[in-house]
Amino acid sequence: MDKEFSNIRIVDIAKMAGVSVGTVDRVIHNRGRVSEENRKKVQAILEMVNYQPNLMARSLASKKQYHFIAITPSFAQGEYWEAISEGIDKAASEMGAYNITITKLFFDQYDNKTFDDIVRNLLDKKVDGVLIATLFTDSVIRLSRELDRFEIPYIYVDSNIEGQHQLAYFGTESYDAGVIAARLLTDRISPASDILMARIIHSGKNDSNQGRNRREGFCRYLKEMRFTGSLHEVELKINDSVYNFTKLDEIFESNPNIEGAVIFNSTCYILGNYLKARAMQSVKLVGYDLIERNTQLLSEGVITALVAQRPERQGYEGIKSLCNHLLFKQHSEMVNLMPIDILLKENLKYYLNNKL
Amino acid sequence: MDKEFSNIRIVDIAKMAGVSVGTVDRVIHNRGRVSEENRKKVQAILEMVNYQPNLMARSLASKKQYHFIAITPSFAQGEYWEAISEGIDKAASEMGAYNITITKLFFDQYDNKTFDDIVRNLLDKKVDGVLIATLFTDSVIRLSRELDRFEIPYIYVDSNIEGQHQLAYFGTESYDAGVIAARLLTDRISPASDILMARIIHSGKNDSNQGRNRREGFCRYLKEMRFTGSLHEVELKINDSVYNFTKLDEIFESNPNIEGAVIFNSTCYILGNYLKARAMQSVKLVGYDLIERNTQLLSEGVITALVAQRPERQGYEGIKSLCNHLLFKQHSEMVNLMPIDILLKENLKYYLNNKL
Repeated sequence: MDKEFSNIRIVDIAKMAGVSVGTVDRVIHNRGRVSEENRKKVQAILEMVNYQPNLMARSLASKKQYHFIAITPSFAQGEYWEAISEGIDKAASEMGAYNITITKLFFDQYDNKTFDDIVRNLLDKKVDGVLIATLFTDSVIRLSRELDRFEIPYIYVDSNIEGQHQLAYFGTESYDAGVIAARLLTDRISPASDILMARIIHSGKNDSNQGRNRREGFCRYLKEMRFTGSLHEVELKINDSVYNFTKLDEIFESNPNIEGAVIFNSTCYILGNYLKARAMQSVKLVGYDLIERNTQLLSEGVITALVAQRPERQGYEGIKSLCNHLLFKQHSEMVNLMPIDILLKENLKYYLNNKL
Repeated sequence: MDKEFSNIRIVDIAKMAGVSVGTVDRVIHNRGRVSEENRKKVQAILEMVNYQPNLMARSLASKKQYHFIAITPSFAQGEYWEAISEGIDKAASEMGAYNITITKLFFDQYDNKTFDDIVRNLLDKKVDGVLIATLFTDSVIRLSRELDRFEIPYIYVDSNIEGQHQLAYFGTESYDAGVIAARLLTDRISPASDILMARIIHSGKNDSNQGRNRREGFCRYLKEMRFTGSLHEVELKINDSVYNFTKLDEIFESNPNIEGAVIFNSTCYILGNYLKARAMQSVKLVGYDLIERNTQLLSEGVITALVAQRPERQGYEGIKSLCNHLLFKQHSEMVNLMPIDILLKENLKYYLNNKL
């Protein structure tokens, strides 16, 4: 907890030092006459309580209004992006007294045009800071350059994009999250077996930045481990089980050597539901994110392992860092990497109520 | 962050509601005459900022002194119990303004008599609350009954003991932490290979509560998985490499089928150093806790996996819950289970700077 949020008041410090409020005020602002003895008394108390000028009261008094915009994918209940949104709400609620409003704008994570549509009219509004989920690299870079031009600070979450002027990034190292999935899978399958990599078909031309980096880390690990099996790829549709089952039947029938499967976003329940329906217990499946449909299959043993990255904390810390920057002139680190959590059936339950 | 630590003052609320300080005071304490219109204005602001009476200022004004005692094992730099102690210090520093002092008393984790020695004279001092690392069950229960008699609240960390009157427990489910070690090991060794369980010889008669529970969970998982290999046990000494190497040479020579090894506390570096010195890459080793000597061997690939339990957060939240109980009459849950983190070489670095 930041010291600045503890509520020591000048009147408390005066009491503790045994001097008047005016004396404390003069010592803090280094003006007027104070006896050496009283100055020492007050300074000892200031140090003890680690006093910081009351920035919150100043901000309240200033009545300045701040308007933040958070641009993230839309979601249904229990989906991945709900957790980021919950983190944003939690930060907003803690900052309730600071005259801050947050507008949440949502795009379709499978269609980069919907992101560009949001961006087009963004700067018509009063905007003091922006939080951006960086799924579509090119579009995010275009937006960032616009924000740079107007000197509006912005935060990246989900995956980082280097070479831009983001105030801070909160998320994981996507490449390493791919390496970890490869490690979790290869530890559990025979050395010369095959692996299936599934991918969700996107409507737009842009693939997700995060998914691409994870895939790269995954493949690099296999190469370094001198994995000798074959890699098969399959494209699935987000809401078309019939299509997906047909595709998967084909690929598993013609490749009986597949022992492992992976998908580089939160939709591994699609593969999990297939493996469960076909009773294919022998295929190990590794995926991402603690969303309900995944955790259910993990607890049933259908999914072998999930890699997770604390999305609620990303949303929460992203908004807090905008506030700290604008209201308190405090700067966070530029790159803030969340732990990459490994979830098995056995430790799952201890994460479900420990989100931040 | 608890709302109560944000520093909204009555004067701020009066400003925001556009009424006098006296009006706000009358609404909060529900006394005196306030117009219905002003009452509504003030109540809206109170709700918006989630106002809590300023307990901290009251506590400061009361000048009451609190004395807490924390009883944990002693440690050298980089050892497991240092992290718990760091968490205690962090809480103490945040609570600096509340007239709280914390005395840390240390016992030898391999000798239960040293715990009993500390306890013997404990109640001669003024004690308002106690944090106890519960390594030695019988001794902790005796201490708890004494504290009950004097109505002194106490907190357990490390492992829970049921049936006592602890205010709260912060730690992991030790049994499940044993299950997880078994899962991590059996996923990576051949089905009919043998496993070595190492144990540190204690001077006192009492074995550690946590170690015993982990061992039980470990063995139960093997049984349920119908593990058909043999379990070998070896007793090691905490500071005697010559003795340990001789013992381990004997057991590995006479049991070439050992493919996995485990030890149920933070000393798995002892086994790790042996495996490294003998270049026995084929033996998979699983242990506990992110202490420096373990993380070094994990990053080298000598240790296969570590199970960790956020000790810093245990110490931190343990002390905070004593404060919340005594100063603010707030009560935490009785059982507060930390996530059981799984660390591999590949995700290790993202945990080292993310302790709490």
